[in-house]
Amino acid sequence: MSENKKTATPLSALGEFGLIDKLTKPFKISNPSTVKGVGDDAAIIKSEGKDILVTTDLLAEGIHFDLVYTPLQHLGYKAVVVNLSDIYAMGGTPRQITVSLAVSSKFSVEALEQLYDGIRRACERYDVDLIGGDTTSSLTGLVISITAVGQIDSGAAVMRNGAKVGDLVCVSGDLGGAYAGLQILKREREVYMVNPTSQPDLTKYDYVIGRQLKPEARRDVINRMKETGLTPTAMIDISDGLSSELLHICKQSGCGVKIYESKLPVDEQTETVANELHMDSTLIAMNGGEDYELLFTIPAEQVEIAGNMPEISIIGQITNEPGVYTLMGRVAGSTRISAQGWESGF
Amino acid sequence: MSENKKTATPLSALGEFGLIDKLTKPFKISNPSTVKGVGDDAAIIKSEGKDILVTTDLLAEGIHFDLVYTPLQHLGYKAVVVNLSDIYAMGGTPRQITVSLAVSSKFSVEALEQLYDGIRRACERYDVDLIGGDTTSSLTGLVISITAVGQIDSGAAVMRNGAKVGDLVCVSGDLGGAYAGLQILKREREVYMVNPTSQPDLTKYDYVIGRQLKPEARRDVINRMKETGLTPTAMIDISDGLSSELLHICKQSGCGVKIYESKLPVDEQTETVANELHMDSTLIAMNGGEDYELLFTIPAEQVEIAGNMPEISIIGQITNEPGVYTLMGRVAGSTRISAQGWESGF
Repeated sequence: MSENKKTATPLSALGEFGLIDKLTKPFKISNPSTVKGVGDDAAIIKSEGKDILVTTDLLAEGIHFDLVYTPLQHLGYKAVVVNLSDIYAMGGTPRQITVSLAVSSKFSVEALEQLYDGIRRACERYDVDLIGGDTTSSLTGLVISITAVGQIDSGAAVMRNGAKVGDLVCVSGDLGGAYAGLQILKREREVYMVNPTSQPDLTKYDYVIGRQLKPEARRDVINRMKETGLTPTAMIDISDGLSSELLHICKQSGCGVKIYESKLPVDEQTETVANELHMDSTLIAMNGGEDYELLFTIPAEQVEIAGNMPEISIIGQITNEPGVYTLMGRVAGSTRISAQGWESGF
Repeated sequence: MSENKKTATPLSALGEFGLIDKLTKPFKISNPSTVKGVGDDAAIIKSEGKDILVTTDLLAEGIHFDLVYTPLQHLGYKAVVVNLSDIYAMGGTPRQITVSLAVSSKFSVEALEQLYDGIRRACERYDVDLIGGDTTSSLTGLVISITAVGQIDSGAAVMRNGAKVGDLVCVSGDLGGAYAGLQILKREREVYMVNPTSQPDLTKYDYVIGRQLKPEARRDVINRMKETGLTPTAMIDISDGLSSELLHICKQSGCGVKIYESKLPVDEQTETVANELHMDSTLIAMNGGEDYELLFTIPAEQVEIAGNMPEISIIGQITNEPGVYTLMGRVAGSTRISAQGWESGF
């Protein structure tokens, strides 16, 4: 399903260096700061008067992705985007990435070329250079480990620990879509297992499936902040879910938070899927994860700037009660917010 | 064999953030350039007027290590050292690392603490800061992906492409020991499989086993170069084997090379093991790999400086015949040198 079956050259036909050459050749260098990319012991990055940002993410087959419903191009694209999202969440500009793969012999050269095609598309879209990596065999499955390097003016990085009492809590885009998309893909996978000839019409789920398979990093929001003069005091990207990220900001900033259910941005298609699956769309928005939207706090006096940005929703406020994280109900009442990242993985 | 059985807390008892906190708490920051380490979307590194070096390596269970004979502390130590070795091979100083793990539920919290204990020892020995990473579950086995960041004066990095005709070819330390150690460990593993109560005496193999399980990066050689004024024109670390690395330098520098078998530095214990196993010690020295020694070229006029450094052997010379890589025999005759990194992995 996810691999072009026309040609399938075994990886052993090329050897390590031949394979790396073949996979990395289509990548062009676009940043003046990239002095030396792929092909030496280490890459060289020039940096005068800037701070360097470094982030890394690892994706494992069977845990983070299922190749039955994940095209390899999309997987490569997403693996890059989730790292760039971390650099944007510091307010920085991603410049370079390294890509390491552990890959079993079930993958062909053509399959890895598809994966790298997705990686290249992400590099081109976000003006990022591939500068190195490591490609090795594994006994089972595929593991992708990417490290992204970014730049920011010295001292300008937006960390998680800067939220102040009274700050407004904002998110970009909408929430829960990636989780809703995943549920649809899982449902279709089960149908496919029972009846492999079924041809499901997934067009009415296109938005949420796209959110799951091909997320984008919010470079546009970071750029708009700079244009409008919005100055976030704390920021994080939403990978594990809104609840989890809220707790990171509050714990590191030593404060509490109050979120208003009625203010949570949820797309109509996410609502529809939630209804179909008999799930609560608020629960999905709070805990879904993988939306790669930005969660940030701003000084209350910037309410008007934020209010004029259509890509942003103000969803709550920072309080002076450390450890108290409250979701105010749409109609009445309130509940405690809790989260712990993954727990079920092991 | 490689894991303390006294306590075994399942990974699920802590959750992702609890686990990361527990594993990273014993690490202290030692570099002024580390502005922000573990705990945000990205780490922040300060850099004024320096070039930044970035390198990454991925180690997969069953391919790069066998936990039957690899203590987890040593594995963690080695996983760091192989990355630092790449930074030194550019002439740089490693400053920071990120560590990403994919780990199956067969590992306990205590096992990962042992792994991180080895990582911490390497960080402390080489004055390197742990600044981030990603810890996730896997369906099978253990994958360790480490990225190292280093610094060097702008434009001073020693690349693979700078070797000139007439340059002398040098290596640090001795060659083939890590491979010899691996063969002993594999042999003992087979004995152990047949008779688990056997208590082999491995003390007479201590040097080569140490070379395999706990290699060091040659920071000392880089420092001595600076002290003595030795200026390598091209440099690489020996991870895949001398032959393979020679070809990298020659291909990127557009030249040939002549190596003298009689000049290859081989430890006595490596010779003994080669004899025991009926293997040719020259073959082991040329292709063994994993020694993490430095291979470099120097201008011929620096022959005296190099000759006075006991940690260095001059083993050959760069020639003006691109594509011709020759090993001059100890007694007579010559053979072509060839290599391709791994080929058997897939």
